[in-house]
Amino acid sequence: MGRPSAKQRKPYNRDAILDVAVRVFRQRGYDGSSLDDIARAAGITKASIYYHVRSKEQLLDRGVGRALDALFAVLDETDARRSSALERLKHVIRRTVEITVAMLPEVALLLRVRGNTRIERKILARRREFDHLLAGVVRQAQRAGLIRADLDPGLTTRLIFGMSNSITEWYRPRGALGAAGVADAIFKIAFAGLQREGERKRKRA
Amino acid sequence: MGRPSAKQRKPYNRDAILDVAVRVFRQRGYDGSSLDDIARAAGITKASIYYHVRSKEQLLDRGVGRALDALFAVLDETDARRSSALERLKHVIRRTVEITVAMLPEVALLLRVRGNTRIERKILARRREFDHLLAGVVRQAQRAGLIRADLDPGLTTRLIFGMSNSITEWYRPRGALGAAGVADAIFKIAFAGLQREGERKRKRA
Repeated sequence: MGRPSAKQRKPYNRDAILDVAVRVFRQRGYDGSSLDDIARAAGITKASIYYHVRSKEQLLDRGVGRALDALFAVLDETDARRSSALERLKHVIRRTVEITVAMLPEVALLLRVRGNTRIERKILARRREFDHLLAGVVRQAQRAGLIRADLDPGLTTRLIFGMSNSITEWYRPRGALGAAGVADAIFKIAFAGLQREGERKRKRA
Repeated sequence: MGRPSAKQRKPYNRDAILDVAVRVFRQRGYDGSSLDDIARAAGITKASIYYHVRSKEQLLDRGVGRALDALFAVLDETDARRSSALERLKHVIRRTVEITVAMLPEVALLLRVRGNTRIERKILARRREFDHLLAGVVRQAQRAGLIRADLDPGLTTRLIFGMSNSITEWYRPRGALGAAGVADAIFKIAFAGLQREGERKRKRA
């Protein structure tokens, strides 16, 4: 094994170390990973890691920050004055699915943050804020009469985004199914439901 | 601190140790937890734990086994000859929600198993088998023409149970919402969808 050559070490900048850290955290759990594990997986020395970041916590913060920044940006993408609340909700769901597929390890890591340290609690607070804003989009669509209003908006948000969060558990990046296919399936289930029109009518009769 | 008194240690049987272990695993992650952590949380010595179980892995296996046994039992609860495939699917969803709410720490632990050890891989294989059986229930409902058939049954299963799995992330056992309320919301979203009938008709026109 031994220390990798200077040539092998060269390409490691902060972003590349972050890629490795996120992968290691996801595989072994944040609490079960050490900077030694990350250095070993990257094939560099621990000192090289310290050149770029201060601590394991900082790696978590930046790794998860990639996903959180992308998710928060989605909420600014639609113009609330020009699109309906339902269009906004659909846009947010579609983009969340796209980000989850594109940043699979980062989003998976975000969803597993526990809150044992100050940084983790800061991350959880940001995640709660995001969930709160999502529930606001659902509430607006309910108030505008565009989606059913007999369900609590917070609960509805958790269940709908429970579908898109589940992507981190089963999605295979090299499989045939792309983000568009997943978003399409979530749309069909979330907005139209599984039951056939015929069944719906029979039940009502 | 010191060693707890004999009186304090007495109530700890295998089940009580398992309760504590599941709680510690959930809080610190399986990889981040040691038998020392579990002994400390239980207020007993590590030797007392070894009296009941061989290893940390065995605690994981038995803790997660509680959830897996309960989930597999659900599949035997309905008589496939007497109930329709749609009734079976609804029964399985409702019971999965009930078990997730009743065994929140065990199901949460199950969903976070990674597969770094032989026992973890055995657990993942059992979970995959369960998911496979669930997809079979969805496929039967599709073939019987009872639910929409334009979605892959495996993908549909993952998304529907993604909603019920999300319970482990946000459910508060002391809150006002019971298992029946959660199951009702999942049914409404999964089978009827969020979009209002009026919207549905307007879109078709």
